[in-house]
Amino acid sequence: MADQKVTERLADFVAGSRWQDIPAAVRHEAMRSLLNFLGCALGGCRDEAVDLAARVLQPFFGPAQAGVIGRGERPDALNAAFLNGVSANVLEYDDTHLGTVIHPAAPVIPGLLALAERRPVSGAALLHAIALGIETECRIGLGVMPTHYRRGWHITATCGIFGAAAAAGKLLGLDAQRLAWALGHAATQSAGLVESLGSMSKSIGVGNAARNGLAAALFAEAGFTAAERAIEGRYGFAPVTSDSVDLARTTDGLGERWEVLGNCYKPYPCGVVLFPVIDACLELRARHAPAAAQIARIVVRGHPLLRERADRPAVETGREAKVSLQHSAAVALLYGAAGLAQYEDACVADPAVRALRAKAVYEEDAGIAVEAAEVVLHLADGTSLTEHVHHGRGTPGRPMSEAELDAKVRELAAFGAPFVDASALIATVRGIEREAGAARVVRLTVPN
Amino acid sequence: MADQKVTERLADFVAGSRWQDIPAAVRHEAMRSLLNFLGCALGGCRDEAVDLAARVLQPFFGPAQAGVIGRGERPDALNAAFLNGVSANVLEYDDTHLGTVIHPAAPVIPGLLALAERRPVSGAALLHAIALGIETECRIGLGVMPTHYRRGWHITATCGIFGAAAAAGKLLGLDAQRLAWALGHAATQSAGLVESLGSMSKSIGVGNAARNGLAAALFAEAGFTAAERAIEGRYGFAPVTSDSVDLARTTDGLGERWEVLGNCYKPYPCGVVLFPVIDACLELRARHAPAAAQIARIVVRGHPLLRERADRPAVETGREAKVSLQHSAAVALLYGAAGLAQYEDACVADPAVRALRAKAVYEEDAGIAVEAAEVVLHLADGTSLTEHVHHGRGTPGRPMSEAELDAKVRELAAFGAPFVDASALIATVRGIEREAGAARVVRLTVPN
Repeated sequence: MADQKVTERLADFVAGSRWQDIPAAVRHEAMRSLLNFLGCALGGCRDEAVDLAARVLQPFFGPAQAGVIGRGERPDALNAAFLNGVSANVLEYDDTHLGTVIHPAAPVIPGLLALAERRPVSGAALLHAIALGIETECRIGLGVMPTHYRRGWHITATCGIFGAAAAAGKLLGLDAQRLAWALGHAATQSAGLVESLGSMSKSIGVGNAARNGLAAALFAEAGFTAAERAIEGRYGFAPVTSDSVDLARTTDGLGERWEVLGNCYKPYPCGVVLFPVIDACLELRARHAPAAAQIARIVVRGHPLLRERADRPAVETGREAKVSLQHSAAVALLYGAAGLAQYEDACVADPAVRALRAKAVYEEDAGIAVEAAEVVLHLADGTSLTEHVHHGRGTPGRPMSEAELDAKVRELAAFGAPFVDASALIATVRGIEREAGAARVVRLTVPN
Repeated sequence: MADQKVTERLADFVAGSRWQDIPAAVRHEAMRSLLNFLGCALGGCRDEAVDLAARVLQPFFGPAQAGVIGRGERPDALNAAFLNGVSANVLEYDDTHLGTVIHPAAPVIPGLLALAERRPVSGAALLHAIALGIETECRIGLGVMPTHYRRGWHITATCGIFGAAAAAGKLLGLDAQRLAWALGHAATQSAGLVESLGSMSKSIGVGNAARNGLAAALFAEAGFTAAERAIEGRYGFAPVTSDSVDLARTTDGLGERWEVLGNCYKPYPCGVVLFPVIDACLELRARHAPAAAQIARIVVRGHPLLRERADRPAVETGREAKVSLQHSAAVALLYGAAGLAQYEDACVADPAVRALRAKAVYEEDAGIAVEAAEVVLHLADGTSLTEHVHHGRGTPGRPMSEAELDAKVRELAAFGAPFVDASALIATVRGIEREAGAARVVRLTVPN
C-alpha cells in the first residue's frame, strides 16, 4: 500500500483531465447530478436545519459573493457553500452512489457554484469539475469501504470533502502539486460521525464537507503545503479511518471507469428498499384503481432486508414514515404518490392513511431479490391483485428517466421554493454544456 | 461503556460549575495557560503559515468583530478564532498536557477571546471557561489514549475542538442540554491527522478546532440538535477514533482532580527531551564560562529515547534543529540561550555553531531517567566538567517559574510583535481575575 502514491495519482489525474477526454455519457450524468442537486436544495432550503444554520452564521457572513439556493441571503462563498451543502442533503432525497452509499453531489457542487459567481466559469467547466469531484470522493470511498462506514464514519461527509476539494481545485486550475495539497487539506479536515445521523448535527458534517473542501482548494492555491501522502501514508486518511484499506479500488482504471455513471437519483424521499414496494403499489393503482374501502389486506413480500429496514406499522412522524413499508404502500395506493407531501407529519396522521396503513403487512420471501418486491392486494370481494417489481425505480436496473427527473425537480421546487420557474431552471441545466456563464443556474434559484 | 452517559456527564459538569468551586491553584494555572497562549500567539503571528492563512481567508471575512493577536486584521469572530488558533501553535512552543500530549490552549482560548469582544465577559469568567475547556479536552483525550494518537489522530485538533466547544458554551451560558449538543457538534467535526504534521496543513487542523468548537457552541445555543451520546455512543467519537476506549478516565473525579494543573509550558522551542540537555549546558556555561575554542568534546548522556528523538548531528534548517541535541547543546553553550533566535535557519548555518555542534556526541545511559540528562564537557587542557539535570525545566518535576514564564512571553513578543508592550500585557493577564472586561488583553496585543 505504501508503494502506491494514491494522493499523487489522484491529483495528477484531476490536474491532467481535459474536457475532451470526458465521455458524453459522463458529461450527461454530471448534468443530471447537477439537476437533481438543485432540485434537492430547492426542496430542502426551508427546512428547520437550514433556517437555523443561516440564522447562526448570518452575523459572521462576509461580503455578498454567492447565492444560497432558494433563499434570500447572499453570504461569502464559504458560508454559501456550507448552507447549500446542508440544503441539498437535508431531506434525504439526494443522489446515492450505491457502491459506497455516498451522496455525491451535496459536498461537491456548492463550492463550484460559489466559485462560478466569483470568476467566469463555463457550463462545460462546471460539469467537468462535478464529474472529477464525484470520481474522487467515490473512489476514495471505495478504497476505505466497507469498514469505514461500519466503524462509524458518515461517508458522505468524510469522503465528500475530497470531492469538494478536487472539484474546486480543478475549477481554480491548480497544478498537480497544488491539487495534492488540496487533497491533503481535505484529509486533515475530514470528519462526520454516523452517530450524528437522526439529529440536525448531521447537516454540519455535510455542510462542512462542502465548505472546507472549497477552503482546502483555496489554501492549496495560495501555496499552503500539505502532507504528500495524506491519503495512503502511515498516518493518512485511509489507514486511520478504515480497517480494510484497498487503494487499488481507488486508482484502478482511472479515466476509464467513471463512478458518476452509477449515481442514482431517489424517486421517492424515503429508504431505498421501499422503492420497488411503492412502484408496485402505483402500478396496481394505475391499472385497477381499487378504492381504499375495497382493500381488505395489503401483503408486501420481499427480501429480509426489507423487514429489517422498513417493517414499521406504527409511525407517528414523517421521519419514521420514511422507513415504513406500511405507510409507503398506503400513500401510494391512496394518493398515487409518495412524494414530499406524503411524508409530512400531517399525512402520517391522516385518518384515511392510518386506516389503510393498518391493513398492510410484511411477508418474508428470501427468494425475492433485494432490489425487488411484490405487493398482493386482497380485496373485500375475495379476489386478489398481484404486482411484482424487479428493479425499483431510481436504481441501476431502472434509472430515473429524464421525464421522471424533471418531475422530481418540479416537485421539489414547488415544495421548498414555489417562486422558482422550474421549467426555466430545468431547461438551463439541460443546456448548461453550451452555457458561457454557469452562475446563471444559481440566479434562477434565488428570489429577485 | 454504553451505560456511561459521558456526554451528558461532561455537559452537566460544565453547565453546573461555579467560579467559587474552582480552586485557587486551578484559577492560577488557567491564568498561566492564558499568558503562555498569548506569548505563543505573539511569537507565531508572523509565521508564513499565519500570513498565508490570513491572505486566503481575508476575502471571506465578515464584519470586524475580533482582533487577531499581534496583527492588524479584524475579521469576524469565527475567522479570528481560526487565525489565533494557528498562531498559538505554529511555533511548537505552546503548552503540553503530558498525559495526552494535547496542546490545550491553542484550540480553547481563541473562541473565548472572540466572544469577549462581542459581549461583556469578566476576567474571572474567561479563566473559568479556560479551566473547563482544558478539563474537557484533556479528559476526553485520556479516555481515548493511547491508541487514538497511535492510530494517527492529531489529538490537539481532534480533542481540542471539544475543549473549545465546552469553553465557548460555558461563556455563552448554555444549559446542560445545549452544552451536550455543543459537544455533539464538536464530535462530528473532530478532525486532524498526524500525517499532516511537518506541513502547514497541521495548522488547518488546529485552527479548525478553535473555529469549529466556537461554531459548535453557537449552533447549540440556537437549538440546533445533536446526538445525545456523541462521545460514547456505538458510532460516537470514542469508539470510532480509538481502539482502547476507557471513559472512566474521562469522568472519574470530575471537579476533584484538575487536568490544567498538569499543563506544562515549554521553556525552549524544541523537543521536550532536549530540555534537561539545554538546562545542563546553560548551567555549565553560567558556572564555568568555557570558551568554545577550549571545548574539545561535548558528551550528552541520556535515556535511549533521547537518541531516538534527537541524536541528529547534521542539521540544515531550524525545523530540524528543534530535534537535534547537538545543535541545542551548541547554542546553549555558545550563546547561553536556546530561544527562537537559536532555532532560526541563520543560526543553524552560523559557522561558530556548526563548529561546536560537530564536537557533540550522544552516549546512551539507560540508567538516566527519561526526564533527565547529563552533559560532560571535555576541555582542551584535559580537564572535564559535568552537569546532571534530574528534571528538565518546564516539566512537572520543575515547572516554569513565574519569572521564567514572563521572560518567555517577553521573548515571544519581541520576536513576533515587537510593538507590543509586553510588561503591560503580562501585568494585565496576571491581574485578569479582577478585570471587568477580558477583551482588554486582546487590545493590548494588536497594533493601534
